[in-house]
Amino acid sequence: MVELSRLASTRGSGVGEILHLLRDGVPRTRSEIMEITGLSRSTVSARVDTLISLGLVGPAGEAASSGGRPPARIAFLPSSRIVLAIDLGATHGTVAITDLAGTLLDHTTSQLDIAAGPEAVLEWAATTGRQLLEAGGRPATDLVGVGVGVPGPVEHSTGRPVNPPIMPGWDRFDVPARLRRTFDVPVLVDNDVNILALGEHATAWPDADDLVFVKVSTGIGAGVVAGGALQRGAQGSAGDLGHVHVPWHPDSTRASDDDRDLEGIASGPAIAALLRERGIDAHSSADVVALVRQGNREALALVREAGREIGAVLASVVNLLNPSVIVVGGSISRAGEQLIAGVRETVYRRSIPLATQHLSIVQSRSNETAGVTGAAIMVIQAVLSTSDAWDLAGP
Amino acid sequence: MVELSRLASTRGSGVGEILHLLRDGVPRTRSEIMEITGLSRSTVSARVDTLISLGLVGPAGEAASSGGRPPARIAFLPSSRIVLAIDLGATHGTVAITDLAGTLLDHTTSQLDIAAGPEAVLEWAATTGRQLLEAGGRPATDLVGVGVGVPGPVEHSTGRPVNPPIMPGWDRFDVPARLRRTFDVPVLVDNDVNILALGEHATAWPDADDLVFVKVSTGIGAGVVAGGALQRGAQGSAGDLGHVHVPWHPDSTRASDDDRDLEGIASGPAIAALLRERGIDAHSSADVVALVRQGNREALALVREAGREIGAVLASVVNLLNPSVIVVGGSISRAGEQLIAGVRETVYRRSIPLATQHLSIVQSRSNETAGVTGAAIMVIQAVLSTSDAWDLAGP
Repeated sequence: MVELSRLASTRGSGVGEILHLLRDGVPRTRSEIMEITGLSRSTVSARVDTLISLGLVGPAGEAASSGGRPPARIAFLPSSRIVLAIDLGATHGTVAITDLAGTLLDHTTSQLDIAAGPEAVLEWAATTGRQLLEAGGRPATDLVGVGVGVPGPVEHSTGRPVNPPIMPGWDRFDVPARLRRTFDVPVLVDNDVNILALGEHATAWPDADDLVFVKVSTGIGAGVVAGGALQRGAQGSAGDLGHVHVPWHPDSTRASDDDRDLEGIASGPAIAALLRERGIDAHSSADVVALVRQGNREALALVREAGREIGAVLASVVNLLNPSVIVVGGSISRAGEQLIAGVRETVYRRSIPLATQHLSIVQSRSNETAGVTGAAIMVIQAVLSTSDAWDLAGP
Repeated sequence: MVELSRLASTRGSGVGEILHLLRDGVPRTRSEIMEITGLSRSTVSARVDTLISLGLVGPAGEAASSGGRPPARIAFLPSSRIVLAIDLGATHGTVAITDLAGTLLDHTTSQLDIAAGPEAVLEWAATTGRQLLEAGGRPATDLVGVGVGVPGPVEHSTGRPVNPPIMPGWDRFDVPARLRRTFDVPVLVDNDVNILALGEHATAWPDADDLVFVKVSTGIGAGVVAGGALQRGAQGSAGDLGHVHVPWHPDSTRASDDDRDLEGIASGPAIAALLRERGIDAHSSADVVALVRQGNREALALVREAGREIGAVLASVVNLLNPSVIVVGGSISRAGEQLIAGVRETVYRRSIPLATQHLSIVQSRSNETAGVTGAAIMVIQAVLSTSDAWDLAGP
């Protein structure tokens, strides 16, 4: 992958370790950096000078000293560089620029049809991105990377969608190559659920090493954070809760020969189908959400039942991974408390006590910019991490 | 935790990074180490000297040179130090010493009763360990750590068993403190399944970043490797497949009001109970294994059915984590091909194609020393890792 070949180890220039250290925001003297990293004075000096020349760190006040000239403190400057974040949904897209702390600087949301295909959609995203850079007065050289979220499965290592059901024309399309025609920086792509999980983890639960984010909307998917890192699995398909097979069971309202996957039982369209069986006009997640907000009793009961079915699958996930937090997001969760109430009911009943005693099951704090925040976090983590930081000094 | 306080960062002495580099077995010159790590000549020199004085690395042949005195190469010496590994089962225990590559140097297996309690069992383990050290002519100062596997849940961060069902008297017992009365080194404790997963991963599948090890015997448990690391979860209870709730389903031979967890359906004792219902005398995993080996048709069919039930739970795990390898171990798996055949049948039918196209489902290569190998690997990974290596230079 061309665009990731520059995401090489910084061991040659060695700036990654110091940058990683300073990302906590605490200003430090060169001596303090020496002490913490064990690097020699000359090494620290050379690396800090490189970071200063790149504009990533800068002087930050004076340290106390017993006399003479006080030693200068160095601090991370998150606004020194920017990230372009693109969040593509089925019917709308958001493009944003953020600083290196993931703070949103500017963003634009537009209606779009993902089925218009990758050329048209990415052309719009690239043009919008360029306009945001210009409006912010930031030259292209300030950009460290582009992060993209799409509404379907992605092979993260190559940035190509893989058989995405609602994205005709996108299968195996080289998204990074297309965007690098406009932006000559690393481009990282992932599915929307992983992006939301990254954003939620980084912004709301930074200290939770084990977190599962579940999105319930037109589809059902999960983002799995274990050991502090998003887990994508061997082919990048980890988190596919929607296709977990849910056998018929005696508590179910289904017919006993009606054997489905979780998405077929508990997604927005599945709930709409159950409402139609009851003579209520509903065809989509949006219709279900509208009925719930109107207080429709059938809709409220069916959303709660969907929560129970999702909770039964999550109970197994809790036994398997012992997360400290489950975050429930997506349009159906935002319609009210019914979904999460159903989830809690089954998870707390069915999981082992040791795994649930400190488990929080919470509503997502996501809003409409959560996707771009997550996409930016994905880029920042890759670019600024010690182990595989992009050589910011260039090739 | 006293015994983990010495597992501090080596950043002060800084030997961890160089040791981690040299663990691949490739001999390198000081210049090569400088180039790879970005450390200065004086820093590399000081750290290599520290490692040589500790006996962890040593000279290893000469590098090619264009003239003059050839530069000396330095290599990791895995036999310089040793690990004590203790694998405790319900009815037997194994104590071993290994080198820093996890190679078994000597071991002793004895019958024991875990229910005799921690004082008696750990006294035996400590005495046996001391005898192995003496027999091998290794002073106590050669020991870098002790690894212990026990047949029940453990809070890994403190080394204490938590409500272990078959270990009366062990609940919350401070295993590390007891062993440190004999061995003044870090003591790490985990449950037997995690230990086996670590050993299987390190020895048979070192390149698989995502692996699930399942043990099927008196109980059913899993060890989850994701992103290259064993995942223990927030309270250390990750991998509890045995208590995953399995609703009755129409394919099942159970009565429809018979709602159980996986252990109640597919473990050795559960299969023995089903055999008794068919008038066959069986009471334990060992009885089931014996019947399978005799070719008993009922036993063969029931073990295959148990494999299918385990496979149905693993299908969800595959969708969630997208592992590249599932390893099936434990006594029931070693009785023949029936169990793994049943597992494969359901996993390949029920998981999503993207997650199964490159998935291997294999028999464990574990033998009776797999437990001590895994316990040694646990210690070696903790002690020699860059990020939290034990300061081998002592406090």
